[in-house]
Amino acid sequence: MSFKEHLKRAVTETPGALMCTLMGKDGIAVDTFETDTSVERDVATSTIELTSLIAQVHASTAGLKSGALKELVVGGQEMMAIVRPLTDEYFLALLMDSDGNAGKGRYLLRVIAPRLVEELA
Amino acid sequence: MSFKEHLKRAVTETPGALMCTLMGKDGIAVDTFETDTSVERDVATSTIELTSLIAQVHASTAGLKSGALKELVVGGQEMMAIVRPLTDEYFLALLMDSDGNAGKGRYLLRVIAPRLVEELA
Repeated sequence: MSFKEHLKRAVTETPGALMCTLMGKDGIAVDTFETDTSVERDVATSTIELTSLIAQVHASTAGLKSGALKELVVGGQEMMAIVRPLTDEYFLALLMDSDGNAGKGRYLLRVIAPRLVEELA
Repeated sequence: MSFKEHLKRAVTETPGALMCTLMGKDGIAVDTFETDTSVERDVATSTIELTSLIAQVHASTAGLKSGALKELVVGGQEMMAIVRPLTDEYFLALLMDSDGNAGKGRYLLRVIAPRLVEELA
């Protein structure tokens, strides 16, 4: 199964999802699956900006007792992003409408994460 | 109803919750409700560190198409924090075990937020 199949599954099975991307910490996407709506709304730029967010959150949580970052959900007025670090180098991000099903999205990222890690190795 | 009653509701009705705090962006808590477990695990220090995290996330999301920050969920290996900005000056934070019920916590913060905003005015 290719990266894109897993990303596609997260998008198609999450109500309200726009795109799912497997991205390096440098902001360069390894693979992405996006819906037509996502292309229209030009959400790709948001994803790029997520990269700096992740780096900052990583730095901030380093001192937290909560331990290494496992998951991050950023909810805006219009869009929501669910981010899940996979390895030191890569993370998964799922972008959805702010009224999308975040619970389902979190669940699906949790399910596909180990499979992507396997293929990255 | 005082601030603490609302904070207590969020903690007691969310499985796995440790503490809920109404905090200024300067990191000074207006009011806090915490469980005995929270005191034992000394989670207060985590809350203080959350403040700098919030500030950074605010700065990062300013350029995002997702719009103003509505909610932030930071999941660590041991603990999870749900953060909800109330006004420009104050935010709500709910700390819980990483296997706590995040969905219920997010719901309860959404419910008590407008009531706290009313009392802050």
